[in-house]
Amino acid sequence: MASEIRDLDHLCIHTITTKPLEFEVACAKYAALGVKGISIWRDAVDGLDHHAVRECLRTNELTPASYVRGGFFPALQVEKRDAAIEDNIAMLQEAAAMEIPMLVLVCGAEPRQALQTSRDQIREGIEAILPEAKKLNVKLAIEPLHPMYADTRSAITSLAQANDMAEYFSDDYLGIALDVYHLWFDNDLERQIKRCGSNNNLFAFHICDWNVPTTDMLLDRGLMGEGCIPLKQIRGWVEKAGFRGFNEVEIFSNKFWEGDQDLFLDQIVNAYRQHS
Amino acid sequence: MASEIRDLDHLCIHTITTKPLEFEVACAKYAALGVKGISIWRDAVDGLDHHAVRECLRTNELTPASYVRGGFFPALQVEKRDAAIEDNIAMLQEAAAMEIPMLVLVCGAEPRQALQTSRDQIREGIEAILPEAKKLNVKLAIEPLHPMYADTRSAITSLAQANDMAEYFSDDYLGIALDVYHLWFDNDLERQIKRCGSNNNLFAFHICDWNVPTTDMLLDRGLMGEGCIPLKQIRGWVEKAGFRGFNEVEIFSNKFWEGDQDLFLDQIVNAYRQHS
Repeated sequence: MASEIRDLDHLCIHTITTKPLEFEVACAKYAALGVKGISIWRDAVDGLDHHAVRECLRTNELTPASYVRGGFFPALQVEKRDAAIEDNIAMLQEAAAMEIPMLVLVCGAEPRQALQTSRDQIREGIEAILPEAKKLNVKLAIEPLHPMYADTRSAITSLAQANDMAEYFSDDYLGIALDVYHLWFDNDLERQIKRCGSNNNLFAFHICDWNVPTTDMLLDRGLMGEGCIPLKQIRGWVEKAGFRGFNEVEIFSNKFWEGDQDLFLDQIVNAYRQHS
Repeated sequence: MASEIRDLDHLCIHTITTKPLEFEVACAKYAALGVKGISIWRDAVDGLDHHAVRECLRTNELTPASYVRGGFFPALQVEKRDAAIEDNIAMLQEAAAMEIPMLVLVCGAEPRQALQTSRDQIREGIEAILPEAKKLNVKLAIEPLHPMYADTRSAITSLAQANDMAEYFSDDYLGIALDVYHLWFDNDLERQIKRCGSNNNLFAFHICDWNVPTTDMLLDRGLMGEGCIPLKQIRGWVEKAGFRGFNEVEIFSNKFWEGDQDLFLDQIVNAYRQHS
């Protein structure tokens, strides 16, 4: 089983989780609660000065975990694929400028072509940006998504496929972001996590819960402990595979976004201590 | 690739597809269009005399494919699991009385217990009803469901798992109903279909499409050709695996249910000819 959670040293929150908060406000609130890590969504820092972002992180003693989210490589037209590559390189430069060590890739899918074609284009996209990632010292993390997003968001729908892709490149700068929301049901999950860790590809671990019932395919993620994901069990597998990084809380939820964000942050910390 | 569709001899429609129609009306309309098969949902014949149902099928020259849907075996309490088994046996008796040769199993899941526990209870449930199925000459078809239904509807979320379960029993009366909606994204699908066919476990083939975007997790299935499922490719694999049964149209759709059912049936026949 997972190690006991005694402190918040491994707690990281994605800015999207508290979407209504301005970046500086979010940082201050996270820090006040003792949160140590932050994963930064591009929209949260859009228009902000990179130096100011770094200062804000330093002041609040927050360690940036990931920049979210690159990817979306597949497209019918080569011009669009090239544009996606350019945009990913821009994100790598932004991450480097803010001293964020990793870019999460939501790899993308194009419903008018075969999933395998989209996967080939994802591989080509990663190939194109990997040299820049190395040069800038920003790692890339493939995030396999739930199969319900296979139409437009990710042709990579399992940890097995993400492992295949990471092992194809076998590069210290390319690994995997494992989100329990996308993979909890997979009866091959324990074995694939072990495989991921033993190849040094386990770069990030995202947590939340699957609401029963789920009322929205995108924006109804649950707080840890509210749903049916065996979170402690999966965290145990992740730790057994050698992962020692952040437990990143990434919750998209209309319900929580509409509510009081201070209350929500308290709930996150409590849920993290009790149910993660 | 799939064989060319030259006629409607293999077209079957699930009564749920035209949910607003009374059973006798649905039968007459299907027959008028040249549809040859019908899969009957329990609610569609609730309260009807079994002899009258048989007569209605005979009059309209409709061949019953499946009775839908048994299963839902997992539960926390043994009393509930026993009740599910009793209900499945009742469905087998109803199917036999209406001369429907197969019962589709939506196997079930209980979100408060491990998926593996639910799968064990599914196995126990099948074990309990299989003797009755053989006695009544009604086959059982496990339907693996999309992982987005793993919380409450099915702990069996892939064709690989369904194959495992069917091969565990290795019984002429237990096989698999393959629905493209639940499995289209699986990069192991071709191989698992081949495996399913070579073990004589491919009992039924359900078709529809995945809408882009999908607006409801349950009731927004698309008409063939409207979405992103590579239907002809999958039918090709199914036929190559030896399947010669019905192509069963099973569409749950608030949009189509609210519309004119005659128009919808015309659309189904056209979509079947062009896009299946």
